[in-house]
Amino acid sequence: GVKMNKKLLVDVDCGVDDAQAIMLALGDPSVQILGITCVHGNTTVENVCKNVLRVLQACRKLEIPVFKGADKPILGTSISVGNFHGQDGLGDAPDASAPGLDLLQRENAVSALIRIVDENPGEVSLVAMGPLTNLALAVRMDPSLPGKLKGLYIMGGNTESRGNASVCAEFNFAADPEAAFVVLNDYQCPTHLSCWEFTCYSQLPWEFCDAWLGQDSDKARFMTKIFHHSMEEAKNESLQDVCLGCTGFISCDSYAMAAAVDESFITETDRYPVSVELTGTHTRGMMIVDTSGFLKKTHKASIMKKLKGCFQPTV
Amino acid sequence: GVKMNKKLLVDVDCGVDDAQAIMLALGDPSVQILGITCVHGNTTVENVCKNVLRVLQACRKLEIPVFKGADKPILGTSISVGNFHGQDGLGDAPDASAPGLDLLQRENAVSALIRIVDENPGEVSLVAMGPLTNLALAVRMDPSLPGKLKGLYIMGGNTESRGNASVCAEFNFAADPEAAFVVLNDYQCPTHLSCWEFTCYSQLPWEFCDAWLGQDSDKARFMTKIFHHSMEEAKNESLQDVCLGCTGFISCDSYAMAAAVDESFITETDRYPVSVELTGTHTRGMMIVDTSGFLKKTHKASIMKKLKGCFQPTV
Amino acid sequence: GVKMNKKLLVDVDCGVDDAQAIMLALGDPSVQILGITCVHGNTTVENVCKNVLRVLQACRKLEIPVFKGADKPILGTSISVGNFHGQDGLGDAPDASAPGLDLLQRENAVSALIRIVDENPGEVSLVAMGPLTNLALAVRMDPSLPGKLKGLYIMGGNTESRGNASVCAEFNFAADPEAAFVVLNDYQCPTHLSCWEFTCYSQLPWEFCDAWLGQDSDKARFMTKIFHHSMEEAKNESLQDVCLGCTGFISCDSYAMAAAVDESFITETDRYPVSVELTGTHTRGMMIVDTSGFLKKTHKASIMKKLKGCFQPTV
Amino acid sequence: GVKMNKKLLVDVDCGVDDAQAIMLALGDPSVQILGITCVHGNTTVENVCKNVLRVLQACRKLEIPVFKGADKPILGTSISVGNFHGQDGLGDAPDASAPGLDLLQRENAVSALIRIVDENPGEVSLVAMGPLTNLALAVRMDPSLPGKLKGLYIMGGNTESRGNASVCAEFNFAADPEAAFVVLNDYQCPTHLSCWEFTCYSQLPWEFCDAWLGQDSDKARFMTKIFHHSMEEAKNESLQDVCLGCTGFISCDSYAMAAAVDESFITETDRYPVSVELTGTHTRGMMIVDTSGFLKKTHKASIMKKLKGCFQPTV
Ligand SMILES: [Ca+2]
Ligand SMILES: [Ca+2]
Ligand SMILES: [Ca+2]
Ligand SMILES: [Ca+2]
Repeated sequence: GVKMNKKLLVDVDCGVDDAQAIMLALGDPSVQILGITCVHGNTTVENVCKNVLRVLQACRKLEIPVFKGADKPILGTSISVGNFHGQDGLGDAPDASAPGLDLLQRENAVSALIRIVDENPGEVSLVAMGPLTNLALAVRMDPSLPGKLKGLYIMGGNTESRGNASVCAEFNFAADPEAAFVVLNDYQCPTHLSCWEFTCYSQLPWEFCDAWLGQDSDKARFMTKIFHHSMEEAKNESLQDVCLGCTGFISCDSYAMAAAVDESFITETDRYPVSVELTGTHTRGMMIVDTSGFLKKTHKASIMKKLKGCFQPTV
Repeated sequence: GVKMNKKLLVDVDCGVDDAQAIMLALGDPSVQILGITCVHGNTTVENVCKNVLRVLQACRKLEIPVFKGADKPILGTSISVGNFHGQDGLGDAPDASAPGLDLLQRENAVSALIRIVDENPGEVSLVAMGPLTNLALAVRMDPSLPGKLKGLYIMGGNTESRGNASVCAEFNFAADPEAAFVVLNDYQCPTHLSCWEFTCYSQLPWEFCDAWLGQDSDKARFMTKIFHHSMEEAKNESLQDVCLGCTGFISCDSYAMAAAVDESFITETDRYPVSVELTGTHTRGMMIVDTSGFLKKTHKASIMKKLKGCFQPTV
Repeated sequence: GVKMNKKLLVDVDCGVDDAQAIMLALGDPSVQILGITCVHGNTTVENVCKNVLRVLQACRKLEIPVFKGADKPILGTSISVGNFHGQDGLGDAPDASAPGLDLLQRENAVSALIRIVDENPGEVSLVAMGPLTNLALAVRMDPSLPGKLKGLYIMGGNTESRGNASVCAEFNFAADPEAAFVVLNDYQCPTHLSCWEFTCYSQLPWEFCDAWLGQDSDKARFMTKIFHHSMEEAKNESLQDVCLGCTGFISCDSYAMAAAVDESFITETDRYPVSVELTGTHTRGMMIVDTSGFLKKTHKASIMKKLKGCFQPTV
Repeated sequence: GVKMNKKLLVDVDCGVDDAQAIMLALGDPSVQILGITCVHGNTTVENVCKNVLRVLQACRKLEIPVFKGADKPILGTSISVGNFHGQDGLGDAPDASAPGLDLLQRENAVSALIRIVDENPGEVSLVAMGPLTNLALAVRMDPSLPGKLKGLYIMGGNTESRGNASVCAEFNFAADPEAAFVVLNDYQCPTHLSCWEFTCYSQLPWEFCDAWLGQDSDKARFMTKIFHHSMEEAKNESLQDVCLGCTGFISCDSYAMAAAVDESFITETDRYPVSVELTGTHTRGMMIVDTSGFLKKTHKASIMKKLKGCFQPTV
């Protein structure tokens, strides 16, 4: 039989790209997803929970436990979310047979995070693809958590002060800067960052998307359905400005997941101390990359720079 | 028999004045303390736990459950603590027969807060006498918590921009400004604030302290022992500057507790919307009192202004 | 003949209360006004210049030189001004025979400030009743300026975190926080502050205003005319909230001027180091009063606390 | 005769690279330097004045007027300066025959800036190679100044959040962030920026420096003398970290000057709205590049990206 040797715990604000990333992981027989924790972000945490259950249903994996987490950022004040992923976060393509919220676990996402990692010390790769609220709460509840992780993979932040949520801040960090600060400073485990500019420069060509979605399978049909809205949005010109001139499709969350699933996927990284700006007028939520040692920090994060060949997730 | 009709849940960073406040509550037969949650602040959270157990032992109340909570503020960066309460937070007067940390509950303080309030809906008065980290984490874990409280009593903040931890910030708020912000904005329950300037103006005369501590009882002897250090510190001149010129003793935490135990204790209050400054150079952690409606907030806190007669806690 | 032994230089953003203050000074035969410098604030700097010329014309003192100064705060971004003083800053009571701007001096206000003080070393009391932009530019152009002043009298700032332009900031400081910071930190001369709360607590009873304005003189008629608008505004309820509950009329700028004209006018002051918060979310522009020595500054300002009897300016 | 058709006004904090840039301009017969204004920065403004006079003496151009400007940034609080340019800003290589400060003009630098531009409307290229204090004061004194400039060339700021004075800020902007903010927002004239990362990527190879300095001329000998200190510093490893890994010599100020002297020198630019962060914990002084239109500004600056061939200034 297949050896399932990669234990993942996945934290999502399930928009379309989170869905793609989850499907990417589910498609790899060597991966075991121990649980999916939900957090506010692209849409309300209730919608996020619904979306995750829909993805699992489409992939016939409803046995994976799903947990509801924070409904707001640490400070409680949400930033405005655009309509890129649709109002429901999943392309506004409703499904009458979608599973109900009664399928959620009763345990809180933060408690589940702490428990699952504690039950699998040194084995869990935590993949965070939304605002980092749940992770920040978890480490403040249990400071020993990061030391028990195998690794942490984050989609979020930026490296050259280019933003998509504000002039200098990427959405996941901007949506909860305090949480991002806590995670980058308190998770002293191997940390892998897939930042905004990297995902822009690593976009998929549109032709590839078309081929991908044209496959004849339930999963491909589900993907096509939820994907339609954001593909239209992404072809919009002003958005391509935000995406640093790129002319392909960005599946932001997929890179962090791909790296967690197969570390050979990333072929070049930078290693620097990082932090998050909390108080700037234009820079609140911006990631700080300390290339010169100004911050006197010892822990360094791995910042993804190049990936292997053309990125082709198999759903 | 005595009717125990006042259910209190107490959150402390157990310095000397927290100890006095706990003893004040234990001395009132109508009060039932459902639990004591510990938080970093005057000293490490480990010391806080030890101190609480010592107080309970001195009062022969070790049956009250004690829970360990956050060891750091939300952002993880502690401010420096002076030596007012001694290095161990309780006057550096060690006790060989002090109870061990094995008497602590295994449940996390934040989880306990959520559970106990949930088990006693509408009945619990929560008295917070340290940095508000545990309370902030609790409301982010369970947004329904504040709605189940009878009332919230806080020692912290300031009303006229006078500070003791920095030029404009009071210690409990300065020690975790983000937590104070969350609590003042997300706890939409009846909220009673005992602020820094109020405690300065409401100080006890030294003669009173002397009489109080001279009583012949185990509790009075314990109090005398732990109190010695801070009485010496408090007579120091530069400290009296910080305390706005007062020449008596300030038992900061006792006012919030006294108000929770007996609401007739407070004879005059202001009711205003309040918040916390998070980003100022000199004002980070300062409480904002919105007397003119600039903040467009609807929830108002009760700010203690005057108390009944001379405050004489019975230990 | 009368000995004119008090040399004043007056910096204004000439609203109604600036006008009152100028008239107060002109009414004292021992005062010599060396010049009036204009700055943005209650209205545009062009309107301020016009208003000053109208005041001087009403008082038959057009020989006093008037200089145009900064049209914007240091950073260039103006705060919104309410309508308290009317759109033109002087009660929107136009005068067909008002003097033209051709009567302005050609010299820039900042250069004039520097020159006039330099020509009268140790003799000039500088009275600032608007945003402090001109004064800040002047000290950066000529660092020796403050050392040549006899004294500096400022209407601005606050002492207990109550604001009228924002929740925690007084208008003159809020309108140019950087300038206020520069002046409080770089003018190391005798500095006298008439702050917002002080002017609120020292308001004139309405009866007094009525008597004052009822006098039979050109000046009183001019005053009545320009005063009508703000008296109506001041009786408004929500404004009385901002004014800390006072029910009389506040002529903010008059207290600083009165103190400059007759120092016995102020009977009680506090002396503390002061500064200005530049970066707070709610506190930008708030004055910092360092009662406990946190800031490690040596220079102290005199903060007006009580004034002699009932304040009755003679116009 | 040579037609001197390029009128330059130069603002410097004369370190070694400012000296190189001045010599570069003096070496071009088509350039007329109308004046050199001095500002605090690499060293005290008094040292800057002395250094400029030494450069002019070495080039036999003492007829060019030199003006003393601001001795402090707008807010008055200087950042610490490293020792890269030596204590005196010019390599600590004193010269017994250096000209005295009596050669300075009596007119203030800010007044001179305003006057000279006013006398040559539409003709002056202003080249700023230090903190922008003088330029900010000038526009606040005379808002019409920028409209009379032919162009503005600035060495300062950064484009990808890499800093040399702090983790995210370049020295000239970090040394007076408010001034940089004012200049980038209020100088609505053609603006050309030579930013930190650009100068790092455009460094000169060491061999080139050696050849340059080996020439047999008074000017080359002067250059060699003042240059020795910073060449030693620049070979230092930790500094090369700050300089983004470059292994050649960076003459920061020379690129802005070269572009002002010969616009064909720059072969590729970006045009974006820009501003400056004033309030961040890590980002104060960082330049904001608004590639996506978040700031809603209409004025765009030209940001230098590539230069023609190998940059070889002729001294
Ligand atoms: Ca996501
Ligand atoms: Ca306490
Ligand atoms: Ca005024
Ligand atoms: Ca320079």
